[in-house]
Amino acid sequence: MGDVTAEAPATTTVLRVAAISGSLRRTSANTGLIRAGKLCSYLDYLYHQCVVWLLTAERRRVDHVDISELPLLNTDLEVDGGFPPAVEAFRAKIRAADCFLFASPEYNYSISGPLKNALDWGSRPPNCWADRAAAILSASGGSGGSRSQYHIRQVGVFLDIHFINKPEIFTKAHHPPRKFDDDGNLIDPETKEQLRKMLMSLQAFALRLQGKPANSGQRN
Amino acid sequence: MGDVTAEAPATTTVLRVAAISGSLRRTSANTGLIRAGKLCSYLDYLYHQCVVWLLTAERRRVDHVDISELPLLNTDLEVDGGFPPAVEAFRAKIRAADCFLFASPEYNYSISGPLKNALDWGSRPPNCWADRAAAILSASGGSGGSRSQYHIRQVGVFLDIHFINKPEIFTKAHHPPRKFDDDGNLIDPETKEQLRKMLMSLQAFALRLQGKPANSGQRN
Amino acid sequence: MGDVTAEAPATTTVLRVAAISGSLRRTSANTGLIRAGKLCSYLDYLYHQCVVWLLTAERRRVDHVDISELPLLNTDLEVDGGFPPAVEAFRAKIRAADCFLFASPEYNYSISGPLKNALDWGSRPPNCWADRAAAILSASGGSGGSRSQYHIRQVGVFLDIHFINKPEIFTKAHHPPRKFDDDGNLIDPETKEQLRKMLMSLQAFALRLQGKPANSGQRN
Amino acid sequence: MGDVTAEAPATTTVLRVAAISGSLRRTSANTGLIRAGKLCSYLDYLYHQCVVWLLTAERRRVDHVDISELPLLNTDLEVDGGFPPAVEAFRAKIRAADCFLFASPEYNYSISGPLKNALDWGSRPPNCWADRAAAILSASGGSGGSRSQYHIRQVGVFLDIHFINKPEIFTKAHHPPRKFDDDGNLIDPETKEQLRKMLMSLQAFALRLQGKPANSGQRN
Repeated sequence: MGDVTAEAPATTTVLRVAAISGSLRRTSANTGLIRAGKLCSYLDYLYHQCVVWLLTAERRRVDHVDISELPLLNTDLEVDGGFPPAVEAFRAKIRAADCFLFASPEYNYSISGPLKNALDWGSRPPNCWADRAAAILSASGGSGGSRSQYHIRQVGVFLDIHFINKPEIFTKAHHPPRKFDDDGNLIDPETKEQLRKMLMSLQAFALRLQGKPANSGQRN
Repeated sequence: MGDVTAEAPATTTVLRVAAISGSLRRTSANTGLIRAGKLCSYLDYLYHQCVVWLLTAERRRVDHVDISELPLLNTDLEVDGGFPPAVEAFRAKIRAADCFLFASPEYNYSISGPLKNALDWGSRPPNCWADRAAAILSASGGSGGSRSQYHIRQVGVFLDIHFINKPEIFTKAHHPPRKFDDDGNLIDPETKEQLRKMLMSLQAFALRLQGKPANSGQRN
Repeated sequence: MGDVTAEAPATTTVLRVAAISGSLRRTSANTGLIRAGKLCSYLDYLYHQCVVWLLTAERRRVDHVDISELPLLNTDLEVDGGFPPAVEAFRAKIRAADCFLFASPEYNYSISGPLKNALDWGSRPPNCWADRAAAILSASGGSGGSRSQYHIRQVGVFLDIHFINKPEIFTKAHHPPRKFDDDGNLIDPETKEQLRKMLMSLQAFALRLQGKPANSGQRN
Repeated sequence: MGDVTAEAPATTTVLRVAAISGSLRRTSANTGLIRAGKLCSYLDYLYHQCVVWLLTAERRRVDHVDISELPLLNTDLEVDGGFPPAVEAFRAKIRAADCFLFASPEYNYSISGPLKNALDWGSRPPNCWADRAAAILSASGGSGGSRSQYHIRQVGVFLDIHFINKPEIFTKAHHPPRKFDDDGNLIDPETKEQLRKMLMSLQAFALRLQGKPANSGQRN
């Protein structure tokens, strides 16, 4: 998990964003979006430290939660109410988050298998996702992954997730201009700006649901 | 894979149904539906061997294709155009089938992670699912799994699967009367009859798409 | 529109719920759900007037917004930025509402034509639906209308509507016990209780989004 | 309705395509796609009359079925099993068709109200759509209308329509190059070619479902 906020004044806390990429490829563009989200959050933070120090609104931390070690869901693996270690670790990270950022590749017009598997493990009672805000972005060919996003939103009804409506991000990964380098790092300024706006919208909605003023990142 | 047709006359072949359960639980009701489908097909076969021997239309074989050993999809696992052994074996079974039967539990209002993972592995180029008929049934709580079925149908557009429209089977696993025993075996006569009708509809549609008369199970 | 709150103290205001039935039939069960929602809201109000007078949280008004007079959507009917009178009147009611209650029959596995038509007229710029809370209930055969509800939720992403996740109401109109009388009036106590809980959940979510404490129905 | 085939030899018949535009605007791009489909079909016909006269496979007729005069669906309008005249006329055209072509604008991430209304009127018992092939195309902004198409496909499960899977056409109406003139006529060669391929795929699938060889357009 990140360490971006180490320098933050001890008296404040940050909005914690658990970010999940539905692609397990090493050079995945979707995982690249998560990395860019972490950086983008960090830069917002630095910016506000220097320039508008008191505006704690921009203080959030994006943590990439890895899902590649989860077994395929099989409730026979739950023994005496306990989960396999990799599942327990995953669920703890989900529970600790204030909100979620899903980077969802579109596989065959729907959610990727690994991401659906992660959503399912997190839902096993007690449901770890409940009553939190979330945003979805996707990098994909064709329509930029939109089809997968509406399936995730339907899943979210049962999981009791509250998604932001705007902005939606559908990154057409294979259309010019080039958006990712060979390692899957986001290099397109326009997509970076969309991402920054999404994180701000997610933050504002999360705080609104938590009953906190928009210019406050405090918890408790 | 099944061996039901060993006694079939050498001059005819059977319609091969690859049946996939989206649940990995040992006592899964969805896997129970697959087992009942195999049996149901076998009984049809026996019936027609004895009574209307020449009616080869009813000759089909339902094989349960296990998906529990597939790794989470990650295209980094594809090396020099080859797949991991478990994936190769799975894909060979899909390619060899005439049509598909999906027993789809509803996990969080969508396809189960393991089933989506299997659909995705089978879709890797060259797509193994293309231009075949399929049917979906589900055993689940609430609405009987209907939400998962429409997500599978959307996936099938890209995979180029042709689904039958009728009948649809939504088995409300937890409503009376009791439909499955403790091992997940189907014990409800009404659901068995629905299943038999679905297999006949699937067979008829598969033959229609293959350009064969409805009373013929031959492949060339 | 209703007049239930005429007796309310002048110093408080109520949460206004615009309720729309997707069925135009005179004896529609879905319209019956709306009528029951109005009554249910009124009874809550009376209850709180007598017993816990100060708990203004329960103060809401459910108004049935008729959609039967809307023309089929055709933007050629918009002249100089103006809408046909029936459309203008409809849009004014939507704009004035704090939140929405959709009673959605399932027509052919999706939203009814009349309801989709109303959603579309309300969306013409400037979008009248934006940033409000909403709930969906349905009375239908089969699965109780669930398929229509997820289509409405997808529409709501573009309209920027925030739906409550729980409870969901799927009234199986044709299953025993009898739930509606011959005029479409709701007579089933269990469904009435579900409806009451939905209205309370909708109210709580609407207030949360408005940044108001849950025990306050005030506007401005 | 068209009269394109008046010159066709009396001994053959054509595949009749009922084409429906979900937009009622006079200069609608979706209606423009329908017009282009009629023309495209006519040109195929001429081409084959001259060059490969005997290849009746290419003989089809695309008829635009207007839906603007249908009332909003209300089953109270059905009297003694009869429908209003506009509905009767519409239903007769649907019944007479061999297959369907839907030009579906995306309104608020779903089917347009007028198109859903037409689908619903055609479904009233006895269902006029059953067991026919269909294709969907759309001209829209953003993702080219894809979201509306999957909703239509879900509707088609209940209506018992068999959709082709490939090609899918998502015409991004507002992206360069210019695809429609000011009257909504299709002027983009690439989209015309996509449309031609779709009509050929629709024809092949319709004939396959009718159990006819691909190079035959005959009806009996």
